Amino acid sequence: MGRPLVQSTMQDVPLTVTRILEHGSMVHAQSRITTWTGDGAPLRRSFAGTGARAARLAHGLRGLGVGTGDAVGTLMWNNSAHVEAYFAIPSMGAVLHTLNLRLAPEQLAWIVRHAADRVVVVDASLLPLLAPLLPHLDSVEHVIVSGAGDRSVLDGCRARVHDYEELLAAQTDAGYPWPELDERQAAALCYTSGTTGDPKGVVYSHRSVYLHSMEVNSASSFGLKAGETCLPVVPMFHVNAWGLPHAAFMSGASLLLPDRFLQPVPLAEMIESERPSMAAGVPTIWQGLLAELDAKPRDMSSLKVVISGGAPCPPSLMKAFEERHGLRIVQAWGMTETSPLGSMAYPPPGLTAEEEWPYRVTQGRIPASVEARLAGPDGSFLPWDGRSAGELEVRGPWIAGAYHGGADGEPFRPEDKFSPDGWLRTGDVGTITPDGYLTLTDRAKDVIKSGGEWISSVELENHLMAHPEVAEAAVVAVPDEKWGERPLAAVVLRNGSAVEHEALRAFLGDRVARWQLPERWVRVAAVPKTSVGKFDKKALRRQYADGELDVVVLPRVSG
Amino acid sequence: MGRPLVQSTMQDVPLTVTRILEHGSMVHAQSRITTWTGDGAPLRRSFAGTGARAARLAHGLRGLGVGTGDAVGTLMWNNSAHVEAYFAIPSMGAVLHTLNLRLAPEQLAWIVRHAADRVVVVDASLLPLLAPLLPHLDSVEHVIVSGAGDRSVLDGCRARVHDYEELLAAQTDAGYPWPELDERQAAALCYTSGTTGDPKGVVYSHRSVYLHSMEVNSASSFGLKAGETCLPVVPMFHVNAWGLPHAAFMSGASLLLPDRFLQPVPLAEMIESERPSMAAGVPTIWQGLLAELDAKPRDMSSLKVVISGGAPCPPSLMKAFEERHGLRIVQAWGMTETSPLGSMAYPPPGLTAEEEWPYRVTQGRIPASVEARLAGPDGSFLPWDGRSAGELEVRGPWIAGAYHGGADGEPFRPEDKFSPDGWLRTGDVGTITPDGYLTLTDRAKDVIKSGGEWISSVELENHLMAHPEVAEAAVVAVPDEKWGERPLAAVVLRNGSAVEHEALRAFLGDRVARWQLPERWVRVAAVPKTSVGKFDKKALRRQYADGELDVVVLPRVSG
Repeated sequence: MGRPLVQSTMQDVPLTVTRILEHGSMVHAQSRITTWTGDGAPLRRSFAGTGARAARLAHGLRGLGVGTGDAVGTLMWNNSAHVEAYFAIPSMGAVLHTLNLRLAPEQLAWIVRHAADRVVVVDASLLPLLAPLLPHLDSVEHVIVSGAGDRSVLDGCRARVHDYEELLAAQTDAGYPWPELDERQAAALCYTSGTTGDPKGVVYSHRSVYLHSMEVNSASSFGLKAGETCLPVVPMFHVNAWGLPHAAFMSGASLLLPDRFLQPVPLAEMIESERPSMAAGVPTIWQGLLAELDAKPRDMSSLKVVISGGAPCPPSLMKAFEERHGLRIVQAWGMTETSPLGSMAYPPPGLTAEEEWPYRVTQGRIPASVEARLAGPDGSFLPWDGRSAGELEVRGPWIAGAYHGGADGEPFRPEDKFSPDGWLRTGDVGTITPDGYLTLTDRAKDVIKSGGEWISSVELENHLMAHPEVAEAAVVAVPDEKWGERPLAAVVLRNGSAVEHEALRAFLGDRVARWQLPERWVRVAAVPKTSVGKFDKKALRRQYADGELDVVVLPRVSG
Repeated sequence: MGRPLVQSTMQDVPLTVTRILEHGSMVHAQSRITTWTGDGAPLRRSFAGTGARAARLAHGLRGLGVGTGDAVGTLMWNNSAHVEAYFAIPSMGAVLHTLNLRLAPEQLAWIVRHAADRVVVVDASLLPLLAPLLPHLDSVEHVIVSGAGDRSVLDGCRARVHDYEELLAAQTDAGYPWPELDERQAAALCYTSGTTGDPKGVVYSHRSVYLHSMEVNSASSFGLKAGETCLPVVPMFHVNAWGLPHAAFMSGASLLLPDRFLQPVPLAEMIESERPSMAAGVPTIWQGLLAELDAKPRDMSSLKVVISGGAPCPPSLMKAFEERHGLRIVQAWGMTETSPLGSMAYPPPGLTAEEEWPYRVTQGRIPASVEARLAGPDGSFLPWDGRSAGELEVRGPWIAGAYHGGADGEPFRPEDKFSPDGWLRTGDVGTITPDGYLTLTDRAKDVIKSGGEWISSVELENHLMAHPEVAEAAVVAVPDEKWGERPLAAVVLRNGSAVEHEALRAFLGDRVARWQLPERWVRVAAVPKTSVGKFDKKALRRQYADGELDVVVLPRVSG
């Protein structure tokens, strides 16, 4: 020993949301946020002006007693006031808690209580949603109302009510003395809208937001640039609007925000008149826009790329957009727990349009800061061969390693969500190609674990529903003494059909491996559905367990 | 207090060179490194193959006793073995020390001794440079020779000599158990080739290399992408080849490496045949390539952008490239101390070619991770108004905050290089526009500090040399009782001219503010020059101090 070791001589500068705010409002002072207002003129604010207003908001919140680590809720559409909150709250050391206005009121109230939000900033148009909940929100001391609208619904509420603009106007214009923060400090909080169990809070750190923004701006991902304009249709209450507001201030790209005008007609109008270079949202948005454009074509030529995420985008939709309107949709994959950027489905360059499709329909390629592995049924990790299917586990500086506040207030790590070595278990099953393209096929809870192998229920369902006499088909795992689990096929036949189970199994037999073929079959009048219209597989499994289904067991096919 | 504070729930994953290596060799397994070999077929290796060879190199180095924090020197051209060393050495926890083969032999020896390199990896073609130094390099225990060439010059040397390929072949092919590193650990070491004083070592950390690579890949910077090919003409011994090898493994962009074939003809040939999408190097490289292309046009159409850095790129060169060969040169600015990416001169989009020039001739716009400020003559910070000139100081996670190993072996922070609050003093004087474009005009040591204001010697010189009867002009600061410093103009007249000092001052008076006009003038036969042909201002100041110059003092112009 005793040898002089070489030590880094680099500066130790933290990666913070504050730095993104300061950079955007200074170097890109003239970039702007345009908020759509429906029929009126759009509201336009420069990044410099937004920075100045964020400083006033921070002063105002401090005056209301908001301190380091306190949660401040926002119940807002995508608009410039929301961007001010996005930057002011984390930069002052508090925690931005974006509230999903689409949740059921009880869930919303549960989340506000769980996060212990001390202040809620709310769009006036959303007061009808918030006001009835307020009596149940003990932690909320202040409500700050942004925008015009009837506020009488707040009369008599216990929390103090403030007008957003009045609060800002009452503050100094001397800027805010942003504190120097630890990059691992909490910056933002977002709850998953899990369909089962309580919502789970993911707390992003300054470091994770900063690194994620850098990735969003990489040429391999969304590639925002100064002088261009980005339209986040994805709500700002969904995983930081996929990081776009932060990425815009980091790169200088201007923002076009739709506020509450998310319908196809205003979207088409704002794109035509404001000419964004990229837009990002869920497939249903693009489905609606496609129908509108088919009915009434608009000039969409400013859009160089349309990012689709949140759910798989049907290839037919991608093709229709491209053929009929010259718009290219690129898929991205992520979760609340992954900040969300987990993969991006740009095909390798130099391919023909036909050759590109196998890549474009995947969830995409994994960026350097996300490590991925596939855990097989027995827990061992599977090769990236494009065939071996396992549960996707991910690791990285913008991936959650826990959830917010369990019973003791400390972060908690349920073992079905996090591996013993700290990786996130995504709950999705899929494959990865040798060149890092991820394809997700099933939810882990929907695959059938049969004799140490997995059977994809989605694959069996898709094949069954391709049969001309099948109206609907659901496949679920049921216990099996020998194999652990085996598939049960529940089939709804088209009117007048009496196709035999054997015939359907033979039909499947031409399409999947023999050992995957279900022995258990049942004809049902309808597959049970959840409130949002998805197959309710839990209900189906319960019906089977309770003996309510008239199941036929065919002999197992050998080989 | 007692309020439950919200804590981050993000994973704590370090940002390391190892991660870049693993990502590149796994997700971008088929991307490749093509090394030019002159007349023969280029050497092609996949990223996967490079990763496997880097693992073998790490085993080999460990076998030679290389441990955590040890420096390993590389005296190599841009080739695939050098990339292997780039990744293997930091990933095993050691420190990559790239040796500048253009340095004077004494300086090279000084640097190897100062860094205490225990091993040197050297291209066989560079043995004639290394061999004579070896007797003076006490720290060097092993020399690893890569490539074909005469090795007899090493006969009898004290260090043990190894063949690079034999060393790799002797190792296991089972991969290397890369250790989990602290992101603040030293990764790479590069010395400045300062013209005055001893060279100074900058030690990059894993964190700084990682973050810098992310910025290189951002759409606002170099924007590398999978499927494209990048040609770093800038040597890999110059500030990590501007981060391009790391950025390539992070993004999946392939690399085209010129090895020692940096002359215009092979450069033109490799671009035409290998079709890179971007290239990066110093202006003299592009000057040489322009002359070659003018003489013999080649197909350069693959190049979407040519990055020029290391020195200001003459606008005439940029225009000639663009008009005659359709190649767009974009300037970038940086230093060894800034990793190097400090700014990038993309103009705002939407401008005409004419409107773009004022932006394209700047050093460029500052990225989010680099904070900049201008320190005026009195130490106060100046506004970003495009006019106020101050010494540029920078801060950020890939900016040096110290130099390697002073007398006590600890990092040292000379106060002329680092401000008391830890910012790097670049030694460059310039302005920043309100939209963050940096223009550097002078070295701080060449500006004249007159009565609390700065006078640019470079500006006065350029104006004087624009006079038809002036062949050369140098302006230096000389002491002045009243103003602190005042300019002295030393002028070389063209043959036959006898233009008066007063006339030259009047000529200047039409171009700069009156208070900037020199009183002290001298005619000289020639301006003293340094060994590389630059004005030797130190010599001129000494001649003035020693009374060797026949100075005329004109009365000061009032107002």
